[in-house]
This record gives sequence, structure tokens and C-alpha cells, in this order.
Amino acid sequence: MSAHTKLYEGKAKIIYPTDDPQIFLAVFKDDATAFNAQKRGSIQGKGAINCSISSKLFQELEARGIKTHFIDSPAPNQMRIEAVKILPLEVVVRNIAAGSLCQQTGLALGTVLKQPLVEFYYKNDQLGDPLLTRDRLFLMELATVEQVNKITHLALQINEFLKEFFQQCDITLVDFKLEFGLNSQQELLLADEISPDTCRLWDIAAGNDPNRRVLDKDRFRRDLGNVEDAYQEVLRRVLKAVERE
Amino acid sequence: MSAHTKLYEGKAKIIYPTDDPQIFLAVFKDDATAFNAQKRGSIQGKGAINCSISSKLFQELEARGIKTHFIDSPAPNQMRIEAVKILPLEVVVRNIAAGSLCQQTGLALGTVLKQPLVEFYYKNDQLGDPLLTRDRLFLMELATVEQVNKITHLALQINEFLKEFFQQCDITLVDFKLEFGLNSQQELLLADEISPDTCRLWDIAAGNDPNRRVLDKDRFRRDLGNVEDAYQEVLRRVLKAVERE
Repeated sequence: MSAHTKLYEGKAKIIYPTDDPQIFLAVFKDDATAFNAQKRGSIQGKGAINCSISSKLFQELEARGIKTHFIDSPAPNQMRIEAVKILPLEVVVRNIAAGSLCQQTGLALGTVLKQPLVEFYYKNDQLGDPLLTRDRLFLMELATVEQVNKITHLALQINEFLKEFFQQCDITLVDFKLEFGLNSQQELLLADEISPDTCRLWDIAAGNDPNRRVLDKDRFRRDLGNVEDAYQEVLRRVLKAVERE
Repeated sequence: MSAHTKLYEGKAKIIYPTDDPQIFLAVFKDDATAFNAQKRGSIQGKGAINCSISSKLFQELEARGIKTHFIDSPAPNQMRIEAVKILPLEVVVRNIAAGSLCQQTGLALGTVLKQPLVEFYYKNDQLGDPLLTRDRLFLMELATVEQVNKITHLALQINEFLKEFFQQCDITLVDFKLEFGLNSQQELLLADEISPDTCRLWDIAAGNDPNRRVLDKDRFRRDLGNVEDAYQEVLRRVLKAVERE
């Protein structure tokens, strides 16, 4: 495994091939980016933390019948994953209004949604990951109707599990982003990661304090400080919740 | 009728009350704005041209059973309209990819869509008129499911008429924006205007020349020159097509 063999390098992970064409190795990086990579930095230990959190959550989801790309984690910042072709969609599930939803609708930050909102964005950095309507998604042939329906169903199932899981960690799950991929048998698998990079997580103990409660990448985006501590704290609580089960 | 009595002043029209509470007077202005009013200017004679084109098109639509707010046009730049409460939606119908659709999807300008695309945007200048998914539209309670379904049906019907009508004018109807309102009986009426301010219109005779073919507000947006001439030309062709009928 060396730099020249990498299959793909994203903002937070490098994907390497392995001897088995059905298996990739994902190496999680400490690099942090925000606002479509206009803001760049590094969060010490993030790679290992996010890989560890994601590994635990993928295992929990697998135990509940949700198929993921997770195989195992040979090192804290490494995950062996099933080789998938990622669909060019960012699937966002929202329980509480935050981020671009507030900016684009005028809804106040923290508005509790009557029901979870499943949204699709076009995974395309050059275009700035724009919001997709169903019509646009199908016009661009980014996925089939069947895939979109299945993804919506899975996203809501995953949300139900994660909401309750994070509740046990004294954390409110505000929203999160998922990616899905197709393996060589064209099976739809949950891919990418589930971590403070891809979720908005609010510490219940911090109440409504809009800065203190933040336990996710918004600490980096909004320069709130103690970014590493927040990521560490999420990992600590996730591990404790898994142990308790 | 004096300035202090105006009910509402938009970017292109002023709405005045009349002695009859069920009737408003719309006075079309020569003012032109683009890019959410960041670009401002004036197009000589635009008020009268757009009012005349809209009046003709509303009458044609009424004759085909589409209810509009149009009553009559007491002066070239004035339209008496049924008093409606405008729904905060911009309803865009697209036959060919242009404008924000290209920017947000990467589709090439001029791509002919397999079927017309009906899109909803939140009519809100402060937020920059953002694209709405159906879920967002209902979450924000901007309209009921029944209203959205009816509007979609009407928008497609209007598109069928307008496409054919402009074809007779040797003009390709690329896309257009509609607004709808509710009258005192809560009837849904087509409102606002249909003009080179709200439609993308390409001169068929100009072929694929991306500048020469433009007969709409894109001449102003993109500084293509001869803006007044283009608006005049559309009016001339619309009047000729109506006469021929």
C-alpha cells in the first residue's frame, strides 16, 4: 500500500485497493474542510476518531439488518470496506432545522421538524453540491426511482436507530448526511462514514446554548474552538453506549 | 390614484387599489432588475410592451378555459386585474435547459428536456428565491397539496398553449415563470405577467447563435444590447399571431 496505488482521495478519506478486488481499504484523514473546501484545516486525531465512531455505528446498523460497506477496522484510522461504486448523491436526513435548510427557507435554527426530512443533493464539488428535486434527480439520471425509494426508506430507518442511539449518549441528532453505493452484485449498501464530520450533534446537557452544545464539524466551520475535544467526547460516549448494550 | 395609495410596489409593477375592492390596477414599470435586484436599469417602453403582451396572452388563455386575474387594459402600461392574494411561489416551467438549471445541474445550455419540468421556488427576495423541493414547500406551508397539484396541472396546460403560440411567432419557448393567486372566493387564478421579463424566448431564425437568438430579459442580464428592440419584436410577433387567429 503506497501513495501511488490510491484509487481515490476525497476530502476526508483515501481509498486504496487491496489484493481482493471486492475489498477496499479506507484511510481516514485528519484534514478538515468546510464550505465546499473554501475553508481548510486539520483536526488532530480526527481520522482515527471518525473511523472508530463509524465502525461502531456501521456494526450496530448491520446488527439491525441495514447493509453497509463495513468489513472491519484493521487500525484506528483504517476501515476495510466492500468495494462499491458510490452514487453521486448526498442523502441528508434532518430532524431539526440547521445549516442550509435555515438559510434557504428562513426556518429558525433549532426548529423541530414535524417529521424527518430526507433530502437529496448532487454530490458535485464543482457545482457546490446543489439541492435536488426528485424531478432533477431523475432528469440527470443520478439514480432510478426504485433506488431513490429504497434509499429514502433506509435513510428513515437509519435515522430512527441513530436518533435513539445518540439520545442514549445524551446527544440530540439534528441532521446527518449519508452516501450509498452499489457493490459488484448491484446491491445497495450504506457507505462513506457516520461521524461528527457528517452529523450535527448537540450536547443535551448544554441546553440551548448555540455554541456550547455543538459536538460536530460546526465547531470547525464556525471557529467555536475545542474541536478535537468535541470529537473525542462523541467517541467516548459512543463507545460507552455500545458497551452498555 | 396617487403614489401614496399604492398597495404594493414590486420590481416591475405597482399595484393600486380601485373603488371596487375586488379589482386592482397594475401599472407596469420600465424598471429592469436582474440577479435578485443586484443589477438595476431601465428598458424604455418595457412597461407598455410587457403589459400589452401579457394582456394578449391572458386573453388567449382565458379563451382556453384557464382562469387568470386579467380584466382589461385601460392604457398600454395598465392592467385591471382581479384582486388576488399571491401565493409566495415562483412556478417555473422549463422545456430547454438554461439559467440556474444549467448552473445547478451541469446540463449544457440548450439541452432539450425529454418532458417539461415544473419547478417551485420560494418567492422571497431576502433568501434569493431558492429552489423548493415538494417536502420543503409543504414543511413551510406555502401551499396545500391540492394547490400544488392544481398549479402543476395548470402550468403544464399553459406551457402547451404558450409553446405552440410562440412557435407560430417563430420563437422557441425555453422556459417561463408563473405566479398564482387566490381571489376572495379562494379560487386559484394565474396572476402576475407573461412577458420577455418572465420567459426565455429564442428567435428560431437566429439558429444556435447564443446571443443573437435571445429575445428576452437575458439581453439585459447579459448586456447583449438591443434590449428594447427585442421586447418590441416580441410584441410585434405576438400581435401578429393574435390577429391571424
